[in-house]
Amino acid sequence: MRYYKIPDETIRRLPVYFRALLFLSEQGQKSISSKDMADFVGVQPWQIRKDFSYFGDFGTRGVGYDTGKLAREIKKILRINIVRKVALIGVGNLGSAVLAYPGFKIYGFDIASAFDNDPKKIGRKIGNIVVEAASSLSSLKKRKVNLAIIAVPREAAQKTADALVKAGIKGILNFSPCYITVPKRVKVITIDIAMDLARLPYYIPAG
Amino acid sequence: MRYYKIPDETIRRLPVYFRALLFLSEQGQKSISSKDMADFVGVQPWQIRKDFSYFGDFGTRGVGYDTGKLAREIKKILRINIVRKVALIGVGNLGSAVLAYPGFKIYGFDIASAFDNDPKKIGRKIGNIVVEAASSLSSLKKRKVNLAIIAVPREAAQKTADALVKAGIKGILNFSPCYITVPKRVKVITIDIAMDLARLPYYIPAG
Repeated sequence: MRYYKIPDETIRRLPVYFRALLFLSEQGQKSISSKDMADFVGVQPWQIRKDFSYFGDFGTRGVGYDTGKLAREIKKILRINIVRKVALIGVGNLGSAVLAYPGFKIYGFDIASAFDNDPKKIGRKIGNIVVEAASSLSSLKKRKVNLAIIAVPREAAQKTADALVKAGIKGILNFSPCYITVPKRVKVITIDIAMDLARLPYYIPAG
Repeated sequence: MRYYKIPDETIRRLPVYFRALLFLSEQGQKSISSKDMADFVGVQPWQIRKDFSYFGDFGTRGVGYDTGKLAREIKKILRINIVRKVALIGVGNLGSAVLAYPGFKIYGFDIASAFDNDPKKIGRKIGNIVVEAASSLSSLKKRKVNLAIIAVPREAAQKTADALVKAGIKGILNFSPCYITVPKRVKVITIDIAMDLARLPYYIPAG
């Protein structure tokens, strides 16, 4: 079942809720009110209630949300309740950080292959992964990988995206600091690691 | 002047709008409708209009928003219209990627110092910056730095945050995959680089 009317902004918040609920559930907290949840994740209570209302009635009046149950439900809605293979393109500093990052697992992601076009990096083993030549990206189709992370320099980003689209990739997380263009059937989320810092000065008293 | 009633979620979207407006303005596009802006940034048109309504009336009926003017206005609201020094703690893969990332400049950030506790890294020059010992974080107070980026392993994150608070840091961007606790006067934004990937499977047709 798909939930077609859910706005993108709600989908963006679901992983935030999921991570918080998982954390609370692991801490032994069985339920949480929308007010406490709001304080925890920095979203307004009415927004949380509205977001959850899209996919059913998960709260109990006077008790709140069941943390474990709601976490599992969000996993189903986001379709991250199965293990998904992800390809990483670009094994520079950011790519290496992505490979070492422990946080992909909780969303069911397995970064199973890595590519680079630097001959010095190709063939090198990082963790359990042997870096492959970027020229062999087309093999992803056979391997049924449909998610990829781009962590190449800005100049190489569009070319990499084109190769990924050709290789049948359906979703791209783009860490390169530029917009990339893909056919409508492919979903791209571009991350600007500097952007979140841009919110901080607003909250800091002048002086 | 501060705009106290603006919700956090609006503040979170302002840098997204800012970056898009800057891009469009640089491409020579002088104005944009809220509908086109909505398509460009993936936020609903009513939401964009509501977000902008908090700080004035920037649209002209039938013409749309003035890209350059609105970008400058957002800079003022976010208080990123001045250059701000930022300290980086942790010069591993992620920290090195942060140092090399060209995107901080457009928000006025100058990553002016870097710290690590690895003797092999201390004293090393990366770009224009000499890595300092983490034990000298307290010097940030004298240097009037009040923003910091944490890119240390999970185990060291809370200790690092404590040292930063002591050193007078008022805003922290935390890349470590864990929640950290700070006094209320300090604002923390924790980034989970895996979280954005968690939205992708929702948009990908099964099969």
